[in-house]
Amino acid sequence: MNTQIKLAKRVVGLPDHSVWDVQENPMPTPQEGEILVKVLYISLDPAMRGWINNVRSYIPPVQIGEVMRAGTIGQVIESKHPHYKAGDYLYGTGGVQEYVTTDGKGWHPVDPNIAPLPMYLGTLGMPGFTAYFGLLEVGQPKAGETVLVSGAAGAVGSIVGQIAKIKGCRVVGIAGGADKCKYLVEELGFDGAIDYKNESVRKGIKAHCPDGVDVYFDNVGGEILDTALTRLSRGARIVICGAISQYNSESGYQGPSNYMSLLVNRARMEGFVVFDYAKRYGEAAREMGGWLAQGQLKSREHVVEGLEKFHETFLRLFSGEKMGKLVLKV
Amino acid sequence: MNTQIKLAKRVVGLPDHSVWDVQENPMPTPQEGEILVKVLYISLDPAMRGWINNVRSYIPPVQIGEVMRAGTIGQVIESKHPHYKAGDYLYGTGGVQEYVTTDGKGWHPVDPNIAPLPMYLGTLGMPGFTAYFGLLEVGQPKAGETVLVSGAAGAVGSIVGQIAKIKGCRVVGIAGGADKCKYLVEELGFDGAIDYKNESVRKGIKAHCPDGVDVYFDNVGGEILDTALTRLSRGARIVICGAISQYNSESGYQGPSNYMSLLVNRARMEGFVVFDYAKRYGEAAREMGGWLAQGQLKSREHVVEGLEKFHETFLRLFSGEKMGKLVLKV
Repeated sequence: MNTQIKLAKRVVGLPDHSVWDVQENPMPTPQEGEILVKVLYISLDPAMRGWINNVRSYIPPVQIGEVMRAGTIGQVIESKHPHYKAGDYLYGTGGVQEYVTTDGKGWHPVDPNIAPLPMYLGTLGMPGFTAYFGLLEVGQPKAGETVLVSGAAGAVGSIVGQIAKIKGCRVVGIAGGADKCKYLVEELGFDGAIDYKNESVRKGIKAHCPDGVDVYFDNVGGEILDTALTRLSRGARIVICGAISQYNSESGYQGPSNYMSLLVNRARMEGFVVFDYAKRYGEAAREMGGWLAQGQLKSREHVVEGLEKFHETFLRLFSGEKMGKLVLKV
Repeated sequence: MNTQIKLAKRVVGLPDHSVWDVQENPMPTPQEGEILVKVLYISLDPAMRGWINNVRSYIPPVQIGEVMRAGTIGQVIESKHPHYKAGDYLYGTGGVQEYVTTDGKGWHPVDPNIAPLPMYLGTLGMPGFTAYFGLLEVGQPKAGETVLVSGAAGAVGSIVGQIAKIKGCRVVGIAGGADKCKYLVEELGFDGAIDYKNESVRKGIKAHCPDGVDVYFDNVGGEILDTALTRLSRGARIVICGAISQYNSESGYQGPSNYMSLLVNRARMEGFVVFDYAKRYGEAAREMGGWLAQGQLKSREHVVEGLEKFHETFLRLFSGEKMGKLVLKV
């Protein structure tokens, strides 16, 4: 049998169990030109919260009754596809389920001898590419500049900060809790960290970024974005990557009321979607693979075991009870 | 005697008479290297509302007890300056008063034979340069794109729209009232106009910009900015020029709650300050002068006479009871 987690309904606010419909269905059978993949690891990403809303976005919403969309690492267990054989490890959007058949479109091989499989869902996958292209292409940091990143202990934020360090920037992270802040400074080499749960973000930015913020990479939105806007330097770039503090809001999104700081500081706020850089993923993987090999880049995966733990693990994205890339092991 | 209007106090909300202190003071006397200028025309700009707040901005606030800052056209009536002689017409930040002495720094000659003097406060002055550089440098419109502009019947907005037309764009303006909308379409050649006082801006943008908005030039902020964000095309640019709907807010600025549209549409929102382009004002004046001469660009000045009408005329900026560039004739 194939355990599948499907979208049962749409919600405003933090999803509860009733959003998911856990089903036991017959194993799928690959047709000619297809492969049968056993899902080994499921990626948990804040963006998934947006995918279950019925709104126009950069990707169509998951429909009610569909298997919940998720990036996955899987192993081919049966192949009727000319390019793949049983045993191959692949990355693809397999969804929250145990088995999936696919014609292979959008899937690509990963090598467990180069990196642990969960890393292909994090630093060497979408979050890593998001950090790489968002920071370098949209943020355009220059050596000597100050880069501020929120959600800094997360899958994207932790890579943003480390790449910024590699590029010669002063890097300050915003994260929730003393452990995460310690991790940023002591393990990842950030120049400073601000614990938004226990200290004033405004004072923290002022103290850690005395010359202002040149690049602010925003994963959280809300109050933190609004506060960061007050400390921009001339010509600053704000990279809009996510707004995790707002995804479960029941009263709509909070707009950044200090946005006129963009005028005062001749600054810009720009959004991006990592999919636009798909043709350059190889370039990013090669460069980040090199940094990983040289120890310049550290990757951390937080692996939770058991498909039945999907819902409670998903909620950790929003409670902040995880460090680095959150992955569900099936 | 020299009538001067000074800042008496700071306010939140719409200023009333008590904000200004009208004084009769002795005529100033030019020192060696200075000129005495009789102020002929005073520019009234929405930005002046910001200058009387005590906040860090792109220009220091006007201090209490100081003559209110304003762009002016004046005539030299006495010169102890090697470059100027009595009778010369000049543009400079003369302030809201009848006479001013200056060493000439920041002042430059204007020629009443080329254009009517008030036009040097509008299309051939700061508002015109603001439109020119804001649209072309920050907005970067391409022929065939759709440009949406708010405050479209104002000194900046009307020029933004006309330049966008000259550059081959489809242009839609947002303005308050049927007269202004008629003016935009029938006199200035806009492709469409939305009367925000009498129709739904959301429906208006949808109808007039069926393929989305490529450049949104924002002079107003608030609800209109938030609505424009919902209709962006891929890669859109929002030019943050002003936020006139918010300057007199008593409850703080309204942030654009739809800003995540920047992510979905890979769009950016960018602020600028015209002063940064000071070295290129000549270039803008030459090009716009050419367009004016060829009838491609129309300029409209709304001249009110009498320094004693400063306060009530200033309020017209916010009530919308004016068309084109608002100028006070002394």
